[in-house]
Amino acid sequence: MKGKKILVHGGGKLATRLADELNIPQQMVEGRRITDEETLKLVTMVYAGLINKNIVAQLQANDCNAIGVTGADGNAIKAHKRINPQHDFGYVGDVDVVSDAFFLRLLNDMDAIVVAPLTHDGKGQLLNTNADTIAQEIAQSLSDSFETHLIYSFEKAGVLLNVDDENSLIPKLSFEYYQQLKREGSVFSGMIPKLDNAFTALQKGVHRVVIGKGDELNQLLAGTSGTSIMHE
Amino acid sequence: MKGKKILVHGGGKLATRLADELNIPQQMVEGRRITDEETLKLVTMVYAGLINKNIVAQLQANDCNAIGVTGADGNAIKAHKRINPQHDFGYVGDVDVVSDAFFLRLLNDMDAIVVAPLTHDGKGQLLNTNADTIAQEIAQSLSDSFETHLIYSFEKAGVLLNVDDENSLIPKLSFEYYQQLKREGSVFSGMIPKLDNAFTALQKGVHRVVIGKGDELNQLLAGTSGTSIMHE
Repeated sequence: MKGKKILVHGGGKLATRLADELNIPQQMVEGRRITDEETLKLVTMVYAGLINKNIVAQLQANDCNAIGVTGADGNAIKAHKRINPQHDFGYVGDVDVVSDAFFLRLLNDMDAIVVAPLTHDGKGQLLNTNADTIAQEIAQSLSDSFETHLIYSFEKAGVLLNVDDENSLIPKLSFEYYQQLKREGSVFSGMIPKLDNAFTALQKGVHRVVIGKGDELNQLLAGTSGTSIMHE
Repeated sequence: MKGKKILVHGGGKLATRLADELNIPQQMVEGRRITDEETLKLVTMVYAGLINKNIVAQLQANDCNAIGVTGADGNAIKAHKRINPQHDFGYVGDVDVVSDAFFLRLLNDMDAIVVAPLTHDGKGQLLNTNADTIAQEIAQSLSDSFETHLIYSFEKAGVLLNVDDENSLIPKLSFEYYQQLKREGSVFSGMIPKLDNAFTALQKGVHRVVIGKGDELNQLLAGTSGTSIMHE
């Protein structure tokens, strides 16, 4: 891919595997990992250490000068501990502010920034934060300075009418059509937070939002693959 | 502490504790951790993740704008896998080159850089690398541009004539005196690599080298505490 890149990664599967090995019970509520003290240590190790630094080393091997960061580095992403009357999510963070200045300065010198899904509260506390949301918030914060393209990449071809049928891809998804699909109950529930993020990003100045397969990034950028999220 | 700062940390004790919990047998040879594939994952998690990011978050809480990196980030420190006819150290790296440009650019914007003791070979492989050596190599590489002060901080007051007696501190240690102490066998063996590093740094342009307690940094800088390493 040409141009400056920011890669926001997850790591939930590896974190769950290590939690098993260390006998740290894991609990998911509304798709979020309840993050007690031991689980925060675990995700800090897996996301910011193991996954982030191996991606950076691989990018370096491919002549892409990358740097790996969390939201604590350079005060990049400040957040607060989630307040929820129903559930105590523990050390889960909701984003307050992204330092576009930090990302812009780094992008001057670097080809790519690799972001682990952790933020901080400015008082010394790291917080486990949703990677899709971080990607959306960073893309928005840079949209004043750059034409930003936000790509959500995963193992599927894009937004599917039938989650089990890769041929049921929706190439263009407008907000109106999305609302209709939601009313009909035909959006896979796991996709709803991602799609809500996607439409918010578009509203807040992100130039393009595409959802699709991680190994088809250039086609996603060109619009020949995946689902393009449309204003209307 | 005033001025721009680079903190190189270790994390061996935490790594050993996690290795126990995960039943990954650990073996030390000549003070180095034999680093097989599982151990490399472990130290990448502990050094680059858990320790590095918690230090960064704490510095942010103290109004010190810090960024945490490994030698893979920004191609900061390239190394090669240690070649040793007696022992296979596994994924242990010996430093080839430090990118002073990378550190100088980051120091423009940041108050502090926090370095985890990992390097890379440029071909995608992370390598476990001695923190004292990394500190020495970075200090040397920046000495053309800055007056660099290299502080080795640990739990002792400095270089002691008797390792069990904090009152036996040597305030100034010349190379000649160091050679004499080594001949007499009165240097604690664990200190020898650190002191060899220290004298090399001084020879290669580092302005001052001091060894002492981590909680007396300003006194170490002022020369009122610890052991100052002297040219002669």
